[in-house]
Amino acid sequence: MTTSVPADSAPRACDLLVRADAIITQDDDRRVLTGAAVAIGDDLVLEVGDYADLDARYDAAQRLDMSGKMLLPGLVNGHTHLPMTLLRGFADDLPLMEWLEGHIWPVEAQLDEDLLGIGARLGCAELIRTGCTAFLNGYFHEYVTGDAASNCGLRAVLGEGFFAFPSPFFPTAEACWETIRTLEARFRDDPLVRTAVTPHAAFTVPPEDLAASFELAEALDIPWQTHLAESPAETAVCLGKYGMRPVEILRKEGLLSPRVTLHHCVDVTDGEILQLAASGTNVVHNPASNLKLCSGMSPVQKMLDAGVNVGLGTDGASSNNQLNMFRDMGLAALIGKVRHEDASAVNAGTALDMATRHSARCLGWPELGRIEAGFPADMIALDLSSPNLMPVFNHVSHAVYAATGMEVCMTMVAGEVLYLYGEFRTLDVSGLRKEALRCSKWVRSVSGK
Amino acid sequence: MTTSVPADSAPRACDLLVRADAIITQDDDRRVLTGAAVAIGDDLVLEVGDYADLDARYDAAQRLDMSGKMLLPGLVNGHTHLPMTLLRGFADDLPLMEWLEGHIWPVEAQLDEDLLGIGARLGCAELIRTGCTAFLNGYFHEYVTGDAASNCGLRAVLGEGFFAFPSPFFPTAEACWETIRTLEARFRDDPLVRTAVTPHAAFTVPPEDLAASFELAEALDIPWQTHLAESPAETAVCLGKYGMRPVEILRKEGLLSPRVTLHHCVDVTDGEILQLAASGTNVVHNPASNLKLCSGMSPVQKMLDAGVNVGLGTDGASSNNQLNMFRDMGLAALIGKVRHEDASAVNAGTALDMATRHSARCLGWPELGRIEAGFPADMIALDLSSPNLMPVFNHVSHAVYAATGMEVCMTMVAGEVLYLYGEFRTLDVSGLRKEALRCSKWVRSVSGK
Repeated sequence: MTTSVPADSAPRACDLLVRADAIITQDDDRRVLTGAAVAIGDDLVLEVGDYADLDARYDAAQRLDMSGKMLLPGLVNGHTHLPMTLLRGFADDLPLMEWLEGHIWPVEAQLDEDLLGIGARLGCAELIRTGCTAFLNGYFHEYVTGDAASNCGLRAVLGEGFFAFPSPFFPTAEACWETIRTLEARFRDDPLVRTAVTPHAAFTVPPEDLAASFELAEALDIPWQTHLAESPAETAVCLGKYGMRPVEILRKEGLLSPRVTLHHCVDVTDGEILQLAASGTNVVHNPASNLKLCSGMSPVQKMLDAGVNVGLGTDGASSNNQLNMFRDMGLAALIGKVRHEDASAVNAGTALDMATRHSARCLGWPELGRIEAGFPADMIALDLSSPNLMPVFNHVSHAVYAATGMEVCMTMVAGEVLYLYGEFRTLDVSGLRKEALRCSKWVRSVSGK
Repeated sequence: MTTSVPADSAPRACDLLVRADAIITQDDDRRVLTGAAVAIGDDLVLEVGDYADLDARYDAAQRLDMSGKMLLPGLVNGHTHLPMTLLRGFADDLPLMEWLEGHIWPVEAQLDEDLLGIGARLGCAELIRTGCTAFLNGYFHEYVTGDAASNCGLRAVLGEGFFAFPSPFFPTAEACWETIRTLEARFRDDPLVRTAVTPHAAFTVPPEDLAASFELAEALDIPWQTHLAESPAETAVCLGKYGMRPVEILRKEGLLSPRVTLHHCVDVTDGEILQLAASGTNVVHNPASNLKLCSGMSPVQKMLDAGVNVGLGTDGASSNNQLNMFRDMGLAALIGKVRHEDASAVNAGTALDMATRHSARCLGWPELGRIEAGFPADMIALDLSSPNLMPVFNHVSHAVYAATGMEVCMTMVAGEVLYLYGEFRTLDVSGLRKEALRCSKWVRSVSGK
């Protein structure tokens, strides 16, 4: 096996050598390798290349033969509310404001940390099952989601949500900032969990609190994220309250920056798109949620063409109703075409970029979203023997247009295999089923439905 | 077990008793039963009801315990081109006309019956895997698809496609009619396979041939289907050729009728919708294909409100790129909302109706698409232990919004189980994989790609 190795180079040790029919690397050249392998040491990729070559040059402690499968980077979910998985299918076919005020918020007000933890673990199970390895979250009692992610081996960026003060959670702004500082400190030494400052939206948090919270993000040197320009209805509220459109509110406060990630940006003008691009502000596109709540279709290709970094997210399971990045990748590509009246808009490669490298930048974690030497070993495998993935002409096309996400047969984060051929290695999914049943009964009882 | 049975009623014999957590019946009252069962005799449903009750009253030769699963009617695919599964992912991100003329038609011209058979069987595998039990097809050498469907136990309505005469397949109209008569006769005694007359479209088949083919459909008393009003580009061609929009061409020839199923109807006016409704003409909506080819978004809710029977289809895998009715159900519901600027448009129940009962009428097979006593025993089971289906508040919402289609763990047609827990009982899927590889090499060689 070592005949092709020069005499002076002994085989290099690695923890794991993964062989696959194909590897979609998402490296700078967007190489797709066939008959390939990846060598992993600790939590990093050591090398990606031809299988025979790596097989000869590495002395692997373990091997994973994924013949008949293709590897791609773990998908990065740019926007979700993981504990809301509890409310999947609880209220459908309603517009954003009626859905929030009439159904979601009344139940959310009564959720405790025990219930949030079950929702978070349910969400983690679905993310792992459908090949997502990192997510940007926003909700309440975020340490609960942080613990859930850390315990099951997923990467998370936590966002402790807040509204205008005083609120049921925070009597003052300072109390909120203190909670965020505590959250950030709690996970500072956890390689999997980070924190972002997370005001709810420009129509629910006054401009001065948005600005003060951004100062906190700068002081802690962490990302700042908020919902913005989700629908024309939101724009109308902002115009009524402040005489300004959502993007203008942020711009006036100096809140357009590479530190900032804005979720949705459905209702943005051409001029606003140029401001987002010039300032390096990141945007996350949430196609399923935007369609389901009838918010509209974001001008994704127009933003990309202007130079905006646009990632991809599922939003919460209560408005999607999945946490499946494959579904949203396909949707982004499909609706991007009619939105821009151009069949080449948001092509397969673009959609995959959004779900990997672009989303990674939205999380403030730009080293994620690729399979490349020196980068984190976060990757997934799709089983090419699934009938819907035959025949193969183009691996990227299959990932975006043909895969459902359930073809994922392996999910790995930081070199650790979390899911393999139906087995969840870090989660008790059958136990979760019983907890989900208890939760649905509780939701029904408090909502009177 | 028989204590609840009156003394004078002996248990009734049935072939199979299926128990499930829930049954979405799609009966006239759209009942969703929990803790339920269905008794099956020969190829029909004998009774649907409470499990304990049916368990006491039936003497079942076989039992299938689907606890933890929900049953729903087999989905009915109103529009596809099964052998085109060969070209899945072969050409993406292109508009309809360029995709057809520059990529698809040149390869199609060289396909032989051997290759078509492989494509058809690949398609059958995906339909079975994703819970579709009947489909309305259109392609060439349709006996090949008929044999594939019949051999693997799926219901099919075959459509031998034709263009203007003479064509490479048919020197004259009469030669085409004879082929259709032969096709119809070949499967007349097959309970699973029927035939429909299938001109390609109003812009590719002259009005007089459309009219003559409709006479054949009437003589054989079989459905008549065609692509119609798929995009504004098609409308422009029709206006240029005939000075009429697509629906007007059909109306003038007397081709709007309950015997007729029109695929797509993206570019239809309000007045045309009223004509479709008044004439009882059926429409099939193909959301994924319409988005991917940038054809537009069909006014589905407007058609339904006007009284048009609108079914649902996947179109071919080369323009979808899936044959997964769950994906298109979700898409129909999601894009229906932005298309009509109404979050309640194409709600979950409507989308499920489209994919079951409505599509069944489009096939001219209205007894399909429901689980009800006296109707065909075509049903599927979804595994509710999949993380994306927890918790459960609304079973119909889960089928439409939360399921990917890969949660299907049982597919049954006419009382025969075709797929159960990963096992295909009527198809050699690993053999198909090798054949798919051979086909992809052939396509690459003839296309020079």
